[in-house]
Amino acid sequence: MRTVTYGAACSLDGFITARDGAIDWIHFGKDVKAHMERFWPTIDTIVMGRKTFDFANAMGGGKKRRPKKAAAAKGATASRKASGDLWAGMKSIVFSRTLDPADYPDVEIVASDAGEYVRELKRQPGKGICVMGGGELACSLFEAGVVDEVGCNVHPVLLGAGVPLFRDPGRRIPLELVESYTMDGGCVMMKYRVKK
Amino acid sequence: MRTVTYGAACSLDGFITARDGAIDWIHFGKDVKAHMERFWPTIDTIVMGRKTFDFANAMGGGKKRRPKKAAAAKGATASRKASGDLWAGMKSIVFSRTLDPADYPDVEIVASDAGEYVRELKRQPGKGICVMGGGELACSLFEAGVVDEVGCNVHPVLLGAGVPLFRDPGRRIPLELVESYTMDGGCVMMKYRVKK
Repeated sequence: MRTVTYGAACSLDGFITARDGAIDWIHFGKDVKAHMERFWPTIDTIVMGRKTFDFANAMGGGKKRRPKKAAAAKGATASRKASGDLWAGMKSIVFSRTLDPADYPDVEIVASDAGEYVRELKRQPGKGICVMGGGELACSLFEAGVVDEVGCNVHPVLLGAGVPLFRDPGRRIPLELVESYTMDGGCVMMKYRVKK
Repeated sequence: MRTVTYGAACSLDGFITARDGAIDWIHFGKDVKAHMERFWPTIDTIVMGRKTFDFANAMGGGKKRRPKKAAAAKGATASRKASGDLWAGMKSIVFSRTLDPADYPDVEIVASDAGEYVRELKRQPGKGICVMGGGELACSLFEAGVVDEVGCNVHPVLLGAGVPLFRDPGRRIPLELVESYTMDGGCVMMKYRVKK
């Protein structure tokens, strides 16, 4: 069974962006780079909600909307090469009932129930599945009981407001601490297993 | 200058009680006992808001309302002795504009601005000051810039809803990680200094 991991960099008060969407407070140091280099090879699929997909596109990551003109396509490709496309080779699945799959040939747009879809996905052969983004999709996946691991890279700041890492799945989710360690930038990495 | 510390046991999603006020998920193990035995002698004053005062009284802690009859007084004293009054010898200050100080002779009821009051309190001689409770008072003290340290004992559970540890002080509060370590029960203790 494939492992579903939800995690992100967050502030001590649990936000993954500041109130204006800013992520300038996130520390990209050697320790988080080392963490990503260990984690990335363990996954082959990224699932996200529509808002996270929009955010990733705005940040220059993700799988951009297919450009309609050749000139635009060339520009977009150059831009993606320049920014280093971390998601190359990953299967990206976006849960959305409003996006038109024809507009996004590089990603899979799924309009059906996310919990059921991921439950079925876990049964298929493959590497781990990473849930990206701002908690709405993760919340429905927690509700469906398909999340196996949670990782938080807690940054030394109180943001006060913004996009929360966790939302209310309507019940308690008991966790088991797997490991916790400090990283450069005053960050604390905490990894949990979801108790079933 | 006296140090003002705000801290509590909290869930990974940042709540200090569950949605029904429950604290049955809090782990009182040997490590947290050792932590309290180190911390408690460094403070001589506890400040809290009215809701926390009510909660502490309901839990059998705090300084109870003065009973009107001798029989009730005897019962209350026996009950406090039996439960072990952790707050004995501490000066307790409750910020409230509605409570009548005459009803609570064992605590100081303060109706004036909490930020200004604590700022003045820090200038007086004494040990550390501990901010207890559910974030509303702490938020106004963060706004006033009088909080020096933050401590979180993060428990391995997502509660989904309840009383939040942090509220929005309207601006970012940068922190500096002092220490972080795991404790029994799968808890992670994180201590921060507020950057001024």
